[in-house]
Amino acid sequence: MAIWLDQASEGFEQRFAAFLTTKREVSEDVNTAVRAIIDDVRARGDMALAEYSKKFDGIDFAVTPMRVSEAEIDAAIEAVPAEVLGALKVAAVRIESHHRRQLPKDDIYEDDMGVGLGSRWTAIEAVGLYVPGGTASYPSSVLMNAVPAKVAGVDRIVIAVPATGGAVNPAVLAAAKLAGVTEIYRLGGAQAIAALAYGTKTIAPVAKITGPGNAYVAAAKRQVFGTVGIDMIAGPSEVLVIADKDNNPDWIAADLLAQAEHDASAQAILATDDAELAKAVEAAVERQLKTLNRAETAAASWRDFGAIILVKSLQDAIPLANRIAPEHLELAIADPEALLSRIRNAGAIFLGAHTPEVIGDYVGGSNHVLPTARSARFSSGLSVLDFVKRTSILRLGPEQLRTLGPAAIALAVSEGLDAHARSVAIRLNLEG
Amino acid sequence: MAIWLDQASEGFEQRFAAFLTTKREVSEDVNTAVRAIIDDVRARGDMALAEYSKKFDGIDFAVTPMRVSEAEIDAAIEAVPAEVLGALKVAAVRIESHHRRQLPKDDIYEDDMGVGLGSRWTAIEAVGLYVPGGTASYPSSVLMNAVPAKVAGVDRIVIAVPATGGAVNPAVLAAAKLAGVTEIYRLGGAQAIAALAYGTKTIAPVAKITGPGNAYVAAAKRQVFGTVGIDMIAGPSEVLVIADKDNNPDWIAADLLAQAEHDASAQAILATDDAELAKAVEAAVERQLKTLNRAETAAASWRDFGAIILVKSLQDAIPLANRIAPEHLELAIADPEALLSRIRNAGAIFLGAHTPEVIGDYVGGSNHVLPTARSARFSSGLSVLDFVKRTSILRLGPEQLRTLGPAAIALAVSEGLDAHARSVAIRLNLEG
Repeated sequence: MAIWLDQASEGFEQRFAAFLTTKREVSEDVNTAVRAIIDDVRARGDMALAEYSKKFDGIDFAVTPMRVSEAEIDAAIEAVPAEVLGALKVAAVRIESHHRRQLPKDDIYEDDMGVGLGSRWTAIEAVGLYVPGGTASYPSSVLMNAVPAKVAGVDRIVIAVPATGGAVNPAVLAAAKLAGVTEIYRLGGAQAIAALAYGTKTIAPVAKITGPGNAYVAAAKRQVFGTVGIDMIAGPSEVLVIADKDNNPDWIAADLLAQAEHDASAQAILATDDAELAKAVEAAVERQLKTLNRAETAAASWRDFGAIILVKSLQDAIPLANRIAPEHLELAIADPEALLSRIRNAGAIFLGAHTPEVIGDYVGGSNHVLPTARSARFSSGLSVLDFVKRTSILRLGPEQLRTLGPAAIALAVSEGLDAHARSVAIRLNLEG
Repeated sequence: MAIWLDQASEGFEQRFAAFLTTKREVSEDVNTAVRAIIDDVRARGDMALAEYSKKFDGIDFAVTPMRVSEAEIDAAIEAVPAEVLGALKVAAVRIESHHRRQLPKDDIYEDDMGVGLGSRWTAIEAVGLYVPGGTASYPSSVLMNAVPAKVAGVDRIVIAVPATGGAVNPAVLAAAKLAGVTEIYRLGGAQAIAALAYGTKTIAPVAKITGPGNAYVAAAKRQVFGTVGIDMIAGPSEVLVIADKDNNPDWIAADLLAQAEHDASAQAILATDDAELAKAVEAAVERQLKTLNRAETAAASWRDFGAIILVKSLQDAIPLANRIAPEHLELAIADPEALLSRIRNAGAIFLGAHTPEVIGDYVGGSNHVLPTARSARFSSGLSVLDFVKRTSILRLGPEQLRTLGPAAIALAVSEGLDAHARSVAIRLNLEG
């Protein structure tokens, strides 16, 4: 029951353009409530945290301490099934080795004129990672955020996770421990973001906050941006599958539903040049839907935002893909490498029928935190670069200053900044 | 009349901590006004732009067209004094050659298991650069934003600059032309940001907006963030000069004032182990202040936010510098390289007495758009990386999927995502 868009039909461009700008999320205006919570946490610190946690998460810090103890973390490792723990280890190792390649190199050099220039990278000192509670409390996301931070060399990584009634998902604790994170607080919502950004008596502030969350968390991140750094504001997930006729419709249907089951606002799109495959996939989606735990969510996503685009040729799918700028792009075609160079806007690309997007969610090694809602046009997935920063370095001697100084003075004067001009001129005995 | 802080005195830590958190800007709450302007530009496009420009900039697009013509740009080049044009060229060439080294390299490889992984970088397709009007309309900032975008390979670079009464600073147009930018609109404020983010009939939308601006521009950038990318929200400028006794007090005073003259909220700080030098610098500041065009601004900045920190030793200045995380850090000491490795948080570092920060503002080659207000703890200056984005690539064959698939299934099941599990299992014939 997804929408069908036929590139060969009249009015396609108009329909596609409308499809592109369809809003999938109702933006809840929680700014005022969030502002009050942040101000309160800044003013009253731990006491405010205790009150909000009692009210929103039903947890009493006098009974269950805010900070998760080492013993609890160790117990969680024991409680997680061996198979899951093993899988987390596979994932952690692969994520680490892929992300290690992203470490930027310093570049310090002297130019022809003898001016020393440089870019030096250093890790952020302290980072907070928000982990949502409830069904969206994913251990895989803990690894995807914490491992790159660790690889970057961040000294202190802190996790905030809401613990309704006091319980934290043991797999989340196990993933944290595997990633080397042991400073974990039972905190959720805007109050968690405020505590990480401004600190309290118990929690030292961090310099950057990453991780997904609900509307309150997103609004809080936007508000504290500037005091601390933040990663992207994540929206609902999406996939575009470009498939040729030689595909198993059941495989493609499963991939579309893997996206749809995340959220009723998630979006799954199939683009194919083969109407028969499109029909077969649609039928397979309906069949498979019925058997899912989260059938209701997946059905709503597929009904409201799912789409099947019939393209004139696979080549013609490329400009559409670049306009959609999907978070995930599967190229389930015979020669995916042939199309790859023409794709400009996508968070991650999965090549060939044996690379379902789900592998990237867990064990591929690349990061699953990717730009959503067309933001792949201007942003990238999470990486080691999000946990480091660059300082530029400049060094002139008297000779270089004599050579370059006059141009600096000319520009300073033209901009009306005479103290700027003097700062150079005084060293060249041109003044003062 | 700047504040004095003596590291050897009792209560220093407390006073320094208070100094660190002093707010230098009154944050104007213009969010509601900005929201209305953005909504209006989205709804009425060019008509709204014409009305706001008439109202705020006193310009009638029926008389002076919104877009600056090629002829005007060429005329501006002629109008700029040869000395300034030459200096802009020196700056452009040096900025380009430094930034060319920042171009990231693709990394496509196969791991031991035969899994193909990759990071591929592509340029953002269209970028908007906001250039403030009035006295803050700096041609050097045009170069610092446009040249890196050009080096990155951005196809379309658009400039919006408010033109009170219709006039645009010729040096701004000349800098744009030198950087290869010819799509320039007479637009300012929140309406300019809205037009760039959402587009109108005349202006095609861009994918990212960079450049500084007033409170309205900053609020508008925050609000459109997500629809487009934005660079940092720039605050008032700051410098920390660490100086030993062997300095010319007049040079140091000139550097402090070069920062102070930017804005009454700018901040200039001297840290030295020599009380005599400190006193001499303070006297020189008072002397030089009187002769400046912008004496009033510089005096207010120095009076309200200037500081002289007496440190026990130069080594002891380093942890303070890391806490201040200054936008600009001058190391006016005999052996600056010796301290360099211990500095972690700074936007840019200027080594030795012959490298005044002003060189970095104009002709050093490095970027002058740098993190302010302690944000060097978590962010970097503008670079080519701000104009590119990374797509990750994953490729498995049947064999790799058999090896890695079970771990992905285990994690999917543990996260309660059975369509995820099926997407892998169905390809391994583990399920129907």
